[in-house]
Amino acid sequence: MSLAPALDEMRALLGDRLSTAPAVLAHHAQSESHITARAPDAVAFPLTTGEVAALARIAAAHAVPLIGWGAGTSLEGHALAVTGGVTVDFRDMAAVIEVRSEDRIARVQPGITRMALNAWLRDTGLFFPVDPGADASLGGMAATRASGTAAVGYGTMRDNVLGLEIVLAGGEVIRTGSQAPKSSAGYDLTALFVGSEGTLGLITELTLHLHGQPEAVSAATCGFPSMAAAVDCVIATMQMGIPMARIEFLDSATVAACNAHSNMALPETPLLAVEFHGSPAGVQEQAERFGEIAAGFGADGFRWAKAEEDCRALWKMRHAAYPAILASRPGAKAVITDVCVPISALAQAVEETAADIAGSPIPGPILGHVGDGNFHAILLIDPANPDDLTAAKALAHRMAERALRLGGTITGEHGIGLGKLGLMAAEHGAAWGVMDRIKATLDPMNLMNPGKMVP
Amino acid sequence: MSLAPALDEMRALLGDRLSTAPAVLAHHAQSESHITARAPDAVAFPLTTGEVAALARIAAAHAVPLIGWGAGTSLEGHALAVTGGVTVDFRDMAAVIEVRSEDRIARVQPGITRMALNAWLRDTGLFFPVDPGADASLGGMAATRASGTAAVGYGTMRDNVLGLEIVLAGGEVIRTGSQAPKSSAGYDLTALFVGSEGTLGLITELTLHLHGQPEAVSAATCGFPSMAAAVDCVIATMQMGIPMARIEFLDSATVAACNAHSNMALPETPLLAVEFHGSPAGVQEQAERFGEIAAGFGADGFRWAKAEEDCRALWKMRHAAYPAILASRPGAKAVITDVCVPISALAQAVEETAADIAGSPIPGPILGHVGDGNFHAILLIDPANPDDLTAAKALAHRMAERALRLGGTITGEHGIGLGKLGLMAAEHGAAWGVMDRIKATLDPMNLMNPGKMVP
Ligand SMILES: Cc1cc2nc3c(=O)[nH]c(=O)nc-3n(C[C@H](O)[C@H](O)[C@H](O)COP(=O)(O)OP(=O)(O)OC[C@H]3O[C@@H](n4cnc5c(N)ncnc54)[C@H](O)[C@@H]3O)c2cc1C
Ligand SMILES: Cc1cc2nc3c(=O)[nH]c(=O)nc-3n(C[C@H](O)[C@H](O)[C@H](O)COP(=O)(O)OP(=O)(O)OC[C@H]3O[C@@H](n4cnc5c(N)ncnc54)[C@H](O)[C@@H]3O)c2cc1C
Repeated sequence: MSLAPALDEMRALLGDRLSTAPAVLAHHAQSESHITARAPDAVAFPLTTGEVAALARIAAAHAVPLIGWGAGTSLEGHALAVTGGVTVDFRDMAAVIEVRSEDRIARVQPGITRMALNAWLRDTGLFFPVDPGADASLGGMAATRASGTAAVGYGTMRDNVLGLEIVLAGGEVIRTGSQAPKSSAGYDLTALFVGSEGTLGLITELTLHLHGQPEAVSAATCGFPSMAAAVDCVIATMQMGIPMARIEFLDSATVAACNAHSNMALPETPLLAVEFHGSPAGVQEQAERFGEIAAGFGADGFRWAKAEEDCRALWKMRHAAYPAILASRPGAKAVITDVCVPISALAQAVEETAADIAGSPIPGPILGHVGDGNFHAILLIDPANPDDLTAAKALAHRMAERALRLGGTITGEHGIGLGKLGLMAAEHGAAWGVMDRIKATLDPMNLMNPGKMVP
Repeated sequence: MSLAPALDEMRALLGDRLSTAPAVLAHHAQSESHITARAPDAVAFPLTTGEVAALARIAAAHAVPLIGWGAGTSLEGHALAVTGGVTVDFRDMAAVIEVRSEDRIARVQPGITRMALNAWLRDTGLFFPVDPGADASLGGMAATRASGTAAVGYGTMRDNVLGLEIVLAGGEVIRTGSQAPKSSAGYDLTALFVGSEGTLGLITELTLHLHGQPEAVSAATCGFPSMAAAVDCVIATMQMGIPMARIEFLDSATVAACNAHSNMALPETPLLAVEFHGSPAGVQEQAERFGEIAAGFGADGFRWAKAEEDCRALWKMRHAAYPAILASRPGAKAVITDVCVPISALAQAVEETAADIAGSPIPGPILGHVGDGNFHAILLIDPANPDDLTAAKALAHRMAERALRLGGTITGEHGIGLGKLGLMAAEHGAAWGVMDRIKATLDPMNLMNPGKMVP
């Protein structure tokens, strides 16, 4: 890597939108995880695809790594510059380029966040459904194949990205996908780049699939006598084919934390929170059917939210579960885990995980997008006590192994980053070698987010 | 290519399940298209993944091409052995390996056809929704990223394949995906192989996403005063967010052909056929809403089918549209086209296509999966008249160009094969080069279905 001439050329391109200010570097050395890494050597704030392509050409000429950066909310140290290089922060490429209401399509730049996009869309009757708890960028969400609470009803980023513009290593610009709802024309490059965590190229534009704002919404919470009862209720509801927009599980510790943090008075038992979208009659019917099924599993303390603001308060509470849990152990930091299993194995996976945590020295409330078989334990560690981190890492590792044993995956939505690289061989076996070959052919100098994803 | 020793080794492996019988070779030199090619040098009928892997090892040792074969129903000469080699016919690998009802998952071998699979599933309460008109194999459907009438409600093969087992060039066996409903663990190899038309490897097993058989079904046909009215009705219905399992367009020539062929008495005007799946009340509500919207576009002659056998007759008629159209011009052969555009451009695309066909010497009824923006013209040519084929090719080419001009794709569901290779550069530009690099790295000797997909 010949850093100095590369930074000179990048400064000539971007002026003071290339920064080496210590505060800026330090900001980009942080992550929402316990993982630490060195800072990048510089941070670039491009405005256009052309500038990103020029950065990639300069980077290739001088063998300098480029690391994409959206909102920095990823949970496994994805965007850390482990071998130095230049972080490309998409903060200033955050425009909505075009909304085609008839086609339910938006073209956006990668830096726009999901909340900014939905605020922009509010008066169009449309919305973008993928909602990781954090206010992530659309580029980062595509790069991690994010999902969130609404995936059970609307799909993940895999399902809601129709096309991409990508700057490849070396600076070539390609477009993937089309504006048609489907295509059989060639290899599915869109799907290949969604979830590639910036290791195959930088996303400079996304074509997104929007959805109509539902005519009617109904949401509810209800408590269950046990974790198993709540999870079995989810399985039964999924099997009845009742269309759900969201179905979330919160264990009693999570509920207690939310009560304290969001001023709720929910029953402090295992809880499901569900939401139905549709016509007024459809939503009512689905809600009634769900109520009957849930009652059969001993559900109690139903609270229905029909007014929009009540639903909003409910999901605000759910999205605030992370800070609520953090606040439940003052001074603690969190190790956030993320596994996903076949629905039939969900009860076993959740219960074994809860028992494992109960036998450990640290607390770890459990919550999850259970309609997808996806759940998290938020392991709370005392940063001053290294034994806590060791215990958390061991628990997280056993969760991932358990998920694999049950036919699932080491990450349902957070991705690999640095934290899960060591588990890739166990999940993929020889297929990991195929990923390595794809990486090597598209990024032969290993400049795109090096140290991630492949061996 | 050292054919003789390769065939000797393959014969030692498979015995008389390696065939060089002229009739067998001739069968595998045919396709459902006007495209002709030489026959393969031999046809293998493996029974296990291990045998397929052994075939791939022998093929690599002697530089012999391997071409996958499912049901041979693809429409662009996909499975033709253009440079010779060995066709791998999956006829005898057609088992259902496992059905996990709770997870709505089936693991199947690639040779099973969609009708055989659904017959197998009948008593489980589940079904597999992707239905190209023909009784294609699941392996071929994955390889072409097939869709069909139910894609608007249930998605295409892209959405309904959870994982694959693949034999790579050289014989390495990999597994992609997991049994969990979603994952963020690494590059989406499942999506990369779905739609790769046998050019990256041979599919030896699929994990499929099944759906619950709907509690209630309601289907209807109605006629429209014009093509534009029918298409505009589709756009409006999609925008109202009414959930549909199917919505199909048939132009008046197609309706006339179906009336004659299937003994129907439908109004010989542009027609929509729709189907709703859900709860009895939900289906009724959706049907009523559709009826109101359609009436606003001048729809007439509604026929509702509520009994299962009436719905079945309706879709049997729709699926028989192809032979019906063929029969409408005795002695004719068909050139089947396939484009897909954004919904907003659908009326323009269909009308320009109809006008173009009207100005040509050949008939070409139009029908399509209009909820996806996807439609076909069935161009009827006299095989004795070379001018007809020339006219058909020119029409097909202009359809594809028109689709691209309108933001769409050269193929919504049939794929590239031989027939559309010349259009790949126009659709993908530099991204086609990326496909080429992926092909070169996964199949460096170019043995997997050579002459297809990449430059
Ligand atoms: C409280 C909390 C709750 C969360 N809940 C969820 C949840 O429910 N579901 C879920 O899926 N996630 C969740 N997350 C994780 C996080 O929000 C997602 O991983 C999100 O997709 C990251 O987006 P970002 O913009 O912050 O990306 P970053 O963290 O900035 O980057 C993530 C990765 O994407 C790459 N990248 C970023 N932009 C680009 C680009 N334009 N081109 C190429 N590569 C790029 C980076 O290099 C990095 O590898 C949560 C996080 C927090 C803090
Ligand atoms: C009347 C009619 C109507 C049709 N309607 C539709 C429709 O509505 N929608 C639609 O999508 N298609 C439609 N088709 C096209 C066709 O049915 C599909 O393309 C189907 O997916 C092909 O499957 P197959 O098993 O016949 O594959 P084949 O024709 O045998 O092969 C297709 C391709 O897949 C490869 N392949 C086959 N098996 C494997 C394997 N195991 N591993 C790797 N590669 C393999 C072959 O090499 C070839 O490249 C229609 C065809 C006809 C004749």
